[in-house]
Amino acid sequence: MAGTRFAPGPAFGRSRVPGMTAEVEMRDFSNDHRWLSINTATVRKQGNLVEIVDALARHGIRGISPWRDQVADVGLDRAVKAVRDAGLELSGYCRGGMFTADAAHLEEARDDNRRAVDEAAALGAPCLVLVVGGLPQYSRPGSTPSKDLAAAQTMVEEEIGVLLDHARKAKMPLAIEPLHPGYAADRACVNTMRHALDICDRLDPAKSGDVGLAVDLYHVWWDYELFDQIRRAGRSRILAFHVCDWLVPTNHLLLDRGMMGDGVIDIRKCRAAVEAEGFAGYSEVEIFSQDNWWQRPMDEVLSTCIARHKTVV
Amino acid sequence: MAGTRFAPGPAFGRSRVPGMTAEVEMRDFSNDHRWLSINTATVRKQGNLVEIVDALARHGIRGISPWRDQVADVGLDRAVKAVRDAGLELSGYCRGGMFTADAAHLEEARDDNRRAVDEAAALGAPCLVLVVGGLPQYSRPGSTPSKDLAAAQTMVEEEIGVLLDHARKAKMPLAIEPLHPGYAADRACVNTMRHALDICDRLDPAKSGDVGLAVDLYHVWWDYELFDQIRRAGRSRILAFHVCDWLVPTNHLLLDRGMMGDGVIDIRKCRAAVEAEGFAGYSEVEIFSQDNWWQRPMDEVLSTCIARHKTVV
Repeated sequence: MAGTRFAPGPAFGRSRVPGMTAEVEMRDFSNDHRWLSINTATVRKQGNLVEIVDALARHGIRGISPWRDQVADVGLDRAVKAVRDAGLELSGYCRGGMFTADAAHLEEARDDNRRAVDEAAALGAPCLVLVVGGLPQYSRPGSTPSKDLAAAQTMVEEEIGVLLDHARKAKMPLAIEPLHPGYAADRACVNTMRHALDICDRLDPAKSGDVGLAVDLYHVWWDYELFDQIRRAGRSRILAFHVCDWLVPTNHLLLDRGMMGDGVIDIRKCRAAVEAEGFAGYSEVEIFSQDNWWQRPMDEVLSTCIARHKTVV
Repeated sequence: MAGTRFAPGPAFGRSRVPGMTAEVEMRDFSNDHRWLSINTATVRKQGNLVEIVDALARHGIRGISPWRDQVADVGLDRAVKAVRDAGLELSGYCRGGMFTADAAHLEEARDDNRRAVDEAAALGAPCLVLVVGGLPQYSRPGSTPSKDLAAAQTMVEEEIGVLLDHARKAKMPLAIEPLHPGYAADRACVNTMRHALDICDRLDPAKSGDVGLAVDLYHVWWDYELFDQIRRAGRSRILAFHVCDWLVPTNHLLLDRGMMGDGVIDIRKCRAAVEAEGFAGYSEVEIFSQDNWWQRPMDEVLSTCIARHKTVV
């Protein structure tokens, strides 16, 4: 399945992209949702993983990106079977990471991440998404509190290197997800594509594709270097592409993400940029929205995702 | 007064800074609060500007950084007199900016910024702090809505260049404040020191000091390039230094900033870095805190600022 990641979509064509100076070659999403994937966090309050898989099949959605806790909730074997029986492809597996820990919690973190790689392989994921962790007391609770963010960043890089050995044996690419700087303390101290790519360059100078990025627009849309860093990443480093929208105002730092089109991100311009590098995988919708989308029926959320995928992604 | 900006403090000494590998030369703040300045937003709910000036004098605080709306509220002449009579020095004037506007609102934005420069000069500020604006519909309400952040960034740079002519005549340095990426859409689309310094390099390659940065740790603490960019900025580009703290969790994107020591920022390490470049001005406390510090008596807030200035700044 990993091989499908860069397979061209069925309908390439020339589209005019707002904000870009020339016409660019990008896939036409307006007629179908072949390249829509749903990250299961988007409907996590509305059903368990098996129910989500059923709903995706009902809506003709072909891509899914499950979260580990939702897989654990139904059991790995049942999750594997449900995904396979529904004919779904994974666009990623969420998530490994939380690498920052004190010495007493380090082995626990390493074991946990090796298991995440193995689960991703069992599910046929094209990559394991990494939310790398912030300060150790938040990433691995019980760890000695620290304010040393630089030390956390160093540890993240070392531990991705450690995990990479296991991931290579399992043929599971690792996708570092730069998270919005608002999460630097507690979730991820890698907050820009530049930083994530610096890490990739050091760990995998050959650009083998074994380590790359999950580009989630919610986290990186604001960056004045976004388009330069997408070019720098290139085809071998862009392992996943996540969309939602940034709302103004944003009422909660974590749980108030917007449906595509409801916020200020020029999503199509960003998709054009990753596709210009050769990315031709799924456009994965990941929305944490405690007061809005998590309150609506699953079918309504999925129908809306399909509609917005066609019109604004 | 601008000349005092880089005057050495009275008590230099060698201090051991946590997280730094060697002893560094930095001012000793533990015995007095000579280099404490209060940004008036910190106590904006507790009194008007004249009342704040009185309170600062009562607490032996020598630095102040007023906001324009608070100055306007008591009148510029009265503000100038109050500050002068109390023997206060300004560490900055907040704020110019909001440069992004559609054509119909552009002249209004330019007039507004020229007035901000003139007010800063009248008050004897060492610099005018610039919050540059985000998308035009938020920066200058009524402007045509746009999602083109790159265009906003281009406009910001051009308009700082336009304002710079007036600012140079008024001998008023412009301090670009990179704001946390959480404010990219609505307040400032310059979100990293790297971006702000790129702008400075283009507008003032001679490093005259006419344009530089306000380094507010709340906005830049998370950046893996923070210390590299502080070194790049150097003495001529660091015009102001603002402190508060990043709370975990942060309950409001704008109005839940922490008192120094209550969050996760290693403030002293950051101060050591700017002082290593030659910065020897005020450490300005700017805390927006609707549910905590804005609810407490002004004297309690100021006493706490003094105590934390000595122990954690």
